[in-house]
Amino acid sequence: MATTETAPRRPLDAGPPPLVADPAALRAVLDGPHAAVRDEVRDRLADQSAILDESADLTRAELRERVRDLVVEFGAQGHAALGFPPEVGGGGDIGASVAAFETLGYGDLSVLVKSGVQFGLFGGAVLQLGTRRHHDAYLADIVAGRLLGCFAMTETGHGSNVQELRTVARYDAGTDEIVVTTPDDSARKDYIGGAARDGELAVVFAQLEVAGERHGVHAVLVPIRADGEVLPGVRVEDCGAKIGLEGVDNGRLWFDDVRVPRGNLLDRFAEIGDDGAYRSSIDNPDRRFFTMLGTLVQGRVSVGGAGLSASKVALEIAVRYGLRRRQFEAGTPGEETLLLDYGMHQRRLLPLLARTYALSCAQQEVTRQLHEVFSQDTPDADERARRSLESRAAGTKAVLTWHASETIQECREACGGAGYLSANRFAALKADTDVFTTFEGDNHVLLQLVAKGLLTDYSSEFEDLDQFGMVRFVTGLAVETVIERTAAHQLFERIRDVLPGGRDGWDQEAGLLDPDYQLAMLRFREEHQLAGAARRLKAGVDAGTPSGQVFREVQDHVITAARSHVERLVLESFVARVRALPASPTRDVLTALSDLYALSTIEADRGWFLEHGRLSAPRSKAITREVSALLRRVRPVAGELVAAFGIPPEALGAHDLVGPPPADISG
Amino acid sequence: MATTETAPRRPLDAGPPPLVADPAALRAVLDGPHAAVRDEVRDRLADQSAILDESADLTRAELRERVRDLVVEFGAQGHAALGFPPEVGGGGDIGASVAAFETLGYGDLSVLVKSGVQFGLFGGAVLQLGTRRHHDAYLADIVAGRLLGCFAMTETGHGSNVQELRTVARYDAGTDEIVVTTPDDSARKDYIGGAARDGELAVVFAQLEVAGERHGVHAVLVPIRADGEVLPGVRVEDCGAKIGLEGVDNGRLWFDDVRVPRGNLLDRFAEIGDDGAYRSSIDNPDRRFFTMLGTLVQGRVSVGGAGLSASKVALEIAVRYGLRRRQFEAGTPGEETLLLDYGMHQRRLLPLLARTYALSCAQQEVTRQLHEVFSQDTPDADERARRSLESRAAGTKAVLTWHASETIQECREACGGAGYLSANRFAALKADTDVFTTFEGDNHVLLQLVAKGLLTDYSSEFEDLDQFGMVRFVTGLAVETVIERTAAHQLFERIRDVLPGGRDGWDQEAGLLDPDYQLAMLRFREEHQLAGAARRLKAGVDAGTPSGQVFREVQDHVITAARSHVERLVLESFVARVRALPASPTRDVLTALSDLYALSTIEADRGWFLEHGRLSAPRSKAITREVSALLRRVRPVAGELVAAFGIPPEALGAHDLVGPPPADISG
Repeated sequence: MATTETAPRRPLDAGPPPLVADPAALRAVLDGPHAAVRDEVRDRLADQSAILDESADLTRAELRERVRDLVVEFGAQGHAALGFPPEVGGGGDIGASVAAFETLGYGDLSVLVKSGVQFGLFGGAVLQLGTRRHHDAYLADIVAGRLLGCFAMTETGHGSNVQELRTVARYDAGTDEIVVTTPDDSARKDYIGGAARDGELAVVFAQLEVAGERHGVHAVLVPIRADGEVLPGVRVEDCGAKIGLEGVDNGRLWFDDVRVPRGNLLDRFAEIGDDGAYRSSIDNPDRRFFTMLGTLVQGRVSVGGAGLSASKVALEIAVRYGLRRRQFEAGTPGEETLLLDYGMHQRRLLPLLARTYALSCAQQEVTRQLHEVFSQDTPDADERARRSLESRAAGTKAVLTWHASETIQECREACGGAGYLSANRFAALKADTDVFTTFEGDNHVLLQLVAKGLLTDYSSEFEDLDQFGMVRFVTGLAVETVIERTAAHQLFERIRDVLPGGRDGWDQEAGLLDPDYQLAMLRFREEHQLAGAARRLKAGVDAGTPSGQVFREVQDHVITAARSHVERLVLESFVARVRALPASPTRDVLTALSDLYALSTIEADRGWFLEHGRLSAPRSKAITREVSALLRRVRPVAGELVAAFGIPPEALGAHDLVGPPPADISG
Repeated sequence: MATTETAPRRPLDAGPPPLVADPAALRAVLDGPHAAVRDEVRDRLADQSAILDESADLTRAELRERVRDLVVEFGAQGHAALGFPPEVGGGGDIGASVAAFETLGYGDLSVLVKSGVQFGLFGGAVLQLGTRRHHDAYLADIVAGRLLGCFAMTETGHGSNVQELRTVARYDAGTDEIVVTTPDDSARKDYIGGAARDGELAVVFAQLEVAGERHGVHAVLVPIRADGEVLPGVRVEDCGAKIGLEGVDNGRLWFDDVRVPRGNLLDRFAEIGDDGAYRSSIDNPDRRFFTMLGTLVQGRVSVGGAGLSASKVALEIAVRYGLRRRQFEAGTPGEETLLLDYGMHQRRLLPLLARTYALSCAQQEVTRQLHEVFSQDTPDADERARRSLESRAAGTKAVLTWHASETIQECREACGGAGYLSANRFAALKADTDVFTTFEGDNHVLLQLVAKGLLTDYSSEFEDLDQFGMVRFVTGLAVETVIERTAAHQLFERIRDVLPGGRDGWDQEAGLLDPDYQLAMLRFREEHQLAGAARRLKAGVDAGTPSGQVFREVQDHVITAARSHVERLVLESFVARVRALPASPTRDVLTALSDLYALSTIEADRGWFLEHGRLSAPRSKAITREVSALLRRVRPVAGELVAAFGIPPEALGAHDLVGPPPADISG
């Protein structure tokens, strides 16, 4: 037992001592290195919470205006500058900027997403893809919310397959201009935040054509609106009502030979010289494309963080409701039982709560890596670190946003009919987060990206691969490395080695609450699944099956392996975070949560572990019993665990459900 | 192989022949005995489809008015009369009425739910709980939509635990009136459809008090509104914005000593005589309560059917989108792959499609039983059949509504960003069906009810049990019967007996595509889980643990067993339906779907089967391979399978996603 050192004198059969949870101490762990900036955003959310109550009764037009004003105000007050470099007037702290955005996820999510479009996608593209000239001309106004913009990448006909988008940016040497054209309706830009109402300047992704030659996707600045009027040659259509995020003015854009000066090309990685010739510091067009896209990875990290915060709002509401609401007799006539004392209710909510803690650590880790990579002066220096970051960001985003959808739905149902009323937050939480699984990369496509990295070990010789589709990759497959690396006997050796004492039979003898055992199980599953996918790909190719078909048939194995990989990373970051803490009641609480996350993850996939001989039937049942024991152990501190999220009561809302402030309800 | 008779001459290694699907023949199976009435509703939905496009842009007030008008029109045109008995001017066909309601689920769900409140809950309560006097006075007007009403059961403080609700109906012998009172805020009626705007007369459930004595929950008719004005003594509050169903005017009701004539008591099961004395044909108060509630079972059957239809709309959109939309290279340069040709996409959608077919058969079966039980003249005659129906209705409703939530979400994600736009139906489908898992009985509570029936074998000696909580039940537990009945060796015997040849080792040798094998697996799981729950309950009680605690700790086992029971019933009804068909291509298609449903259900819980020795690891993997093979087999007929739902194109909407009419897209 990881907690023995704190409870030396209890009788052997008494079980572990009760947990003692201090919300402030737990909050310090969850807030991590950016507690101060998180608190600033918390204060801001408390001040602006009126929008949460009012939004359900505003018209779409009113809501959009309200949201726009809040975004502009956010910029004007200097909050958005945090992540921009000091030389353009920013705070130069990317990690703090991501933490601030994550915390904004406790509030209205239209405000969050529109801020993300303005400062993250639009501002981020100008910063990352542009050069000094663009920075000087635009960044100060963008960051202060004086110049509103759009990030026009997605097209109707090409959602995830960005490399094949079909908008054209042709350089006209005669006039020294770039001519931006939408060739047909399937190439219209679609779902573009800010396009329908507020955006004045768009970063438009298009196939760049210079002197009749195509050079792949590049970004060009195109003014689309001035003084509220759409500019000539630009056509705008409102996407209309959506499932949620109704405060964001998504729209469609068509460009009818719109001319902009040559200087509007965002030319950090490729330029059109004064002589009208195309030049790039990166020769390989695929590598150039992925390098450009890679600079935008912050968006994925940010969306994941927002999903995490939304999950926390839902969990705090549902847990506090479960600690107030009584239903049916408790055995004592006349007294009813608290919802959270029902075994089923604990099963529904507490594993999600444990996973939320685990994912908070995972999100801190990816934020730390992002900060590290992007705070370096040499963008293309450590390519391997960048690829690893991109993979981790993609995988974490997928897992976090699915977690948000699942958690919010479960919490809504756990609040019964009351959860269905808009006043109780779930309407907005559900509707607004729904698209998180799709935007900034469809989750399944992102997991394919993760798998590709794993199968190629991020080696640069594969840099010209299609980032998403993996199809071309299959034909040139060098998966022998993966197959070799993950050969069963080696896998056993390596996993045995990480366990204390390097014992044989590790998987049948180790304590269920030993984190090394839990990690070894997840690592075994990941590597085994990866090897299986690699073998299947190779077998298909060797048999002469067309590569597209091989990939399509192995796709679900590939995605499963990627998901297992991410779950292992999540547990690793949680375990590492807990191990770094001094022995304390807080560490005991987090250890119990880490065990609950690890064992409920193994339990959920126990079919696989049983199939692959890594669990015996009795041991599998023992895991289920241990999960139940952990649920009972965590139950008494559930109130403190959600209080530790530090959600301002005003931002939490749902007054009908949660009742008086946290101090009165916990325990 | 179940299909061999149709393909005698194919070479042995060629695998089964390609499926040939005829949408019209499949539709005949899905429509079942009520095809004509379903077609009438389809025509109606096509005529009224404008509301689907317009609702996202109407204000709540406008939408409510629009929905009210459509409900009134539905009544005026005579459609609602179908399920009412001929002696009150109805069609006397309960089965047809449920089928009509189910089909209404292809359209706007606010219209469906408000219709359900008016004709099903309100009209149904007057019919089932009232007597001739009430029928004569109200039913004609209710059925024709001239008298709009509410079903005021749920209270803020007592959602699922109806027996403990706290509104009081006191008989005042002095004035020969009943005085209806809301004692405090937690006893207010909550989420009551029709209360906020349109309801004139409410069926109010309250604790009946006669001469100082309480007789439990009874229903009383209370006028709440006349000429659009709320009546004195009644207080109404609008529930305001909700996640969905914004066209339904849910509200809260308080009664401040509202007086109604004695005759307003709905007195089919209990009356207050002219002498002011309380009399009931059912002595036992619990039995009386459950008999009253039992008459309202049609509501649960109807909600389940609506969820089923909503799933079909989502699936048709997602499948047709997957048959049009191409993404990434197909191997042939320049040509991209259809989404539905990706293995992962098939994995996401096709098992849900198979389950939708299975659930359609299950819904037909519960509708048939409902029709049979309620078409008899002797309501309390066959109590066992009624209990069995109530249990089946509860379980089917739970499984169908969870299926709807899961399917709609998966389909939304499978349509990417386009799925997020309201124009494409998912906004309404998601938001409107979300509460289906909660209303007409929270799904978890319903599964407890199912479990109780199984544990007591519906025996009448348990009739005084708390219908939902099961807590009192634990103390008086006679679960030995269950334990005995499900003893492992007996279970093996019985299951072996149903398999062809009665062979030993049935579970390791039988063909995976043998429906008897599949059924035996699901039956074994159900009975084993039921026995486990019974043993745990008994052990807890024997050990002197307080009954409430015993139940709370065993609750998740109990619910799991109930869910397994329902899954077995679903497969049984699907297999029976398929077996009843003559050999034909249509039967082959349905056989493949039945196999896919059965094997993907076993696969999803393979951890349990492996733990309990019913699957070996190789056989478990073989099931996964078989599921994959079935997905590939079903894929070419996916378009026909959704066309068979017979959803009017106008009602389907989502024009951006589905493209031209079905004839052009299938295959």
